[in-house]
Amino acid sequence: MEISRQQFSQKLPEVEKAIKECDFMAIDTELSGEYAHGLHRPPTSVRLYNMADRYQEYKEATERFLIIQFGLCTFTWDEPSGRYIAKPFNFYIFPTSTTGQIQANRVFMTQAQAFDFLTKQSFDFNKWVYQGIPYLTVAEEEVFVAAASKKMSDNMPDIPIDDKEQDFVNEAKLKIKDWIQSDKTAADEGVNITAKNAYQRRLIYQEARKFEGLTAIGMQGFIRVVRLSEKQAQDRQKEKQDKFEKDRASAIGFRKVIDLISQSGKIMVGHNMLLDVCHIVGQFVEPLPETLPEFKALAHRLFPKMADTKYMCTAEPELSAIFGSGTALETLRFETKKEQFKNPHIDMHPGFPRYLTEMAHEAGYDAFMTGSVFLKLVAYLDKTRNPKKYAVIEAQRLAEAEAKEEERQREIQPKVDADGWEISEDEDEDNEESDWNLQEEEVYNYGSVRVDLTNKDGAMDNVLNDINNKTALVRTAFDCFDFQIPEIISNQSNTILVKYSPGTLFDMATAEPLFYEYGKFIIEPNDASSSFVIFESYRNDPAAIQVDNDAFIIVPIAEYLENR
Amino acid sequence: MEISRQQFSQKLPEVEKAIKECDFMAIDTELSGEYAHGLHRPPTSVRLYNMADRYQEYKEATERFLIIQFGLCTFTWDEPSGRYIAKPFNFYIFPTSTTGQIQANRVFMTQAQAFDFLTKQSFDFNKWVYQGIPYLTVAEEEVFVAAASKKMSDNMPDIPIDDKEQDFVNEAKLKIKDWIQSDKTAADEGVNITAKNAYQRRLIYQEARKFEGLTAIGMQGFIRVVRLSEKQAQDRQKEKQDKFEKDRASAIGFRKVIDLISQSGKIMVGHNMLLDVCHIVGQFVEPLPETLPEFKALAHRLFPKMADTKYMCTAEPELSAIFGSGTALETLRFETKKEQFKNPHIDMHPGFPRYLTEMAHEAGYDAFMTGSVFLKLVAYLDKTRNPKKYAVIEAQRLAEAEAKEEERQREIQPKVDADGWEISEDEDEDNEESDWNLQEEEVYNYGSVRVDLTNKDGAMDNVLNDINNKTALVRTAFDCFDFQIPEIISNQSNTILVKYSPGTLFDMATAEPLFYEYGKFIIEPNDASSSFVIFESYRNDPAAIQVDNDAFIIVPIAEYLENR
Repeated sequence: MEISRQQFSQKLPEVEKAIKECDFMAIDTELSGEYAHGLHRPPTSVRLYNMADRYQEYKEATERFLIIQFGLCTFTWDEPSGRYIAKPFNFYIFPTSTTGQIQANRVFMTQAQAFDFLTKQSFDFNKWVYQGIPYLTVAEEEVFVAAASKKMSDNMPDIPIDDKEQDFVNEAKLKIKDWIQSDKTAADEGVNITAKNAYQRRLIYQEARKFEGLTAIGMQGFIRVVRLSEKQAQDRQKEKQDKFEKDRASAIGFRKVIDLISQSGKIMVGHNMLLDVCHIVGQFVEPLPETLPEFKALAHRLFPKMADTKYMCTAEPELSAIFGSGTALETLRFETKKEQFKNPHIDMHPGFPRYLTEMAHEAGYDAFMTGSVFLKLVAYLDKTRNPKKYAVIEAQRLAEAEAKEEERQREIQPKVDADGWEISEDEDEDNEESDWNLQEEEVYNYGSVRVDLTNKDGAMDNVLNDINNKTALVRTAFDCFDFQIPEIISNQSNTILVKYSPGTLFDMATAEPLFYEYGKFIIEPNDASSSFVIFESYRNDPAAIQVDNDAFIIVPIAEYLENR
Repeated sequence: MEISRQQFSQKLPEVEKAIKECDFMAIDTELSGEYAHGLHRPPTSVRLYNMADRYQEYKEATERFLIIQFGLCTFTWDEPSGRYIAKPFNFYIFPTSTTGQIQANRVFMTQAQAFDFLTKQSFDFNKWVYQGIPYLTVAEEEVFVAAASKKMSDNMPDIPIDDKEQDFVNEAKLKIKDWIQSDKTAADEGVNITAKNAYQRRLIYQEARKFEGLTAIGMQGFIRVVRLSEKQAQDRQKEKQDKFEKDRASAIGFRKVIDLISQSGKIMVGHNMLLDVCHIVGQFVEPLPETLPEFKALAHRLFPKMADTKYMCTAEPELSAIFGSGTALETLRFETKKEQFKNPHIDMHPGFPRYLTEMAHEAGYDAFMTGSVFLKLVAYLDKTRNPKKYAVIEAQRLAEAEAKEEERQREIQPKVDADGWEISEDEDEDNEESDWNLQEEEVYNYGSVRVDLTNKDGAMDNVLNDINNKTALVRTAFDCFDFQIPEIISNQSNTILVKYSPGTLFDMATAEPLFYEYGKFIIEPNDASSSFVIFESYRNDPAAIQVDNDAFIIVPIAEYLENR
């Protein structure tokens, strides 16, 4: 389902319902760019990143580039039909300033190559600019609310009256006084004052409120000053409040969807999702914090249960045995259509027909693929690891199916009368159609098995224990990015631990003379008296690395991990 | 005429022809943004700029934002029909990288408000990204040529042979040697070597060239090593050269249009065109130079004859009397449709029907409007200032028209035979159609007068003397921006000259204590011993400004201008 700017408020309840009812959801984003010259290196270039540096680059990217399309796909188990029902939503996002004067003057970057790439997938740039949904971050919303509240409570500061307007103001005041003294103030009519521009309107408002009990109401071309009854004043206040809430919701715009995802606390799946998460937080919630630990805490608080399909395929031995290095989303989608990934059955909800034909790389479809792959992978892992559990399920299903078949056989036995003759059903023949409908009311059951995503307490500790809240992360010393705990450097031959006295400065300037002969490297701090040194292309025995300085002790990574 | 990426090479000759034949041309641009947060202030905010600061902001803008649509309209006097014929071209510009791997990784900024503004004019963002024409600056072209030349002359450096590929290379060398010894080398066939990837292909090239007189030719999936005859070698070289020239032209892309405009040396008209000129130079020719004088020299060298319709309307007293402050392009277009601006008549060329209905704010149409307004304004000025010249022209035209009418009257006199009877032309009646065509061959003359844009030497010193190579420039101390000479500060009551001993430092820190009581101001350096001080809103007598410091002498601007 594609949701445009115009339809957004109207369709939001459908999104809300889908998130409320679902077992989990998957997301995907399309960006206006990823690699700015001098900011990111192109993805093909080999380079190792220190984790903190990497975060800084992602943070900078979120400040420059935009999510221009967001895909959300919810997956809900449907017991009667024995399958998952998917609801994919596709949103174009554009920071339009047409919804109100409070919208900041937003400037963003575009990488021409990113747009070139999007043309290959028929991305609709007109839909993006003309139909893209705007948004406010939390802080921007606060500014909006403060300004609107001030206006609503008629709490605007007085502005000075220009010499040229003094006559206009005096005349208006006189008109109001005349009207008060005319004894008609109890009636509904009030007094109308014509104002030529916004400045004159503002002046009338500030003069009117100086009269006890009078209210100025803006009309087309003039302002009506009236004395409202208590009931009228209440109605007017409510009307203003309603309009304010509507304007606020419209200004918050797409962030509402992110709020709903976050508030649900449900599993959010992505494919190589770290950059997506950075952009979602930075663009819709708040600018990314200064340090990596702060970011982790914030992201984990917003999205407490994340899973990354790309990381799963490299981290889980049963999966990496199947996929090897072929972990692109489309590859996984293709591979998981095979027999061994048959369970569970997944169908699109009939109200979401947009992706009945494939539309790879539209964010909504990519979210659907990601969630589908996730279900297949988790089901496969669970079955592989818990064959007994599935044997029981299978036996149970078989028994049920047999019982059903027996029942069916009984029902299609020819009906015989007392003498053993078949009772003709000819008289029912012209009712065939209605019979067919009745039979259809029995829901077809695809017989697939619901996947255990969480335990009874809602924790992802069934088969997801090793991968939850971790994402893929290439070109660092780490196998993954971990939203909850510090990442661990794995046993790789290009890494050593360098020990030194606590307080010793160990930076690139210190390390360069010691290790330059072994090639390019990065330093990843460990604790107060040690750091990891990871070489970009050193493939020999790290035990052979020697330094000509007694202040530094070298421990091969394997030895370090053994002793932990 | 809208020219897309695919049609560009094919349509370029039409653009070239239009520029070659025209009297002058007008241009317009649409940008991805103008005002970045913290870079430019929004146009409504009052602030004076020092000229050098202003240039720095424009320079920064050209480095951030892009021309995304370019309009060019040529105007050519057509003597037989007594009118100008306009050819408007509209180009979408997008820095795509699909035309070759040499295209830089371009990143640019977009201001959301600028795109919002473009939606109001139905800007087609899909045409922009999918059909926009790419370009290379002069420096980028040099990089392209160097890389391509190296490849063409087979002058690539040898690359090391990977251990894994050593067998492959040995086998290939053996195959070549066998073929040389087989005595078939004179024949056309050559020897084919299958290569699996780009690396293997490269290795074959570098091995083949080690054999005297052999040439390796890339084919689909394999490389053919042959001994070319002298004629074959020449043909091959020519083929390569042709392909190189084609690739080069395609990579230069839209810059070719800018080159053609520049090479023509003809008048280029814009409306409030300074920012356009900055972007044209910065995006298509070379990054804007560090200093304002360098920029002026560069821009004047590229476009030696510029005229700005907005500036004309404020600078020429006869025009400012008519237009006042209403100098927006559409206002001028509307006003110059009135009777007093009847001359000259301007029509679209029949091959350019896109703007027969108006399409304001599409760059091609805005260029057409700008050029049309320009012709009307110049014609009006000329007629107002040289009434005698136009009286002569009018008299001459009247005489010609009378002569023509007499001729026509003579021709429609009934033909009589010797006896005075009319000769019936009945026999000609079935030839009516061909007669009609013959009559049509006489071109209708709109009777408008060609505008004197330049004198016999091509200089713009007829009516354009005061405005040539100047553009409008608001929010500075100057009435205009001048591409040729330093701008003059005009007689305005908010400006004073401050004199001091040569070498005295006179900057904001010096000036602030002296002048803060008169409001915000800027300093515009004049010479070694004086600077202008221009107040943002001081409207009293500048002679009343006093400073408590003998080192600085204050001269009201009027006094300064009188003594010059």
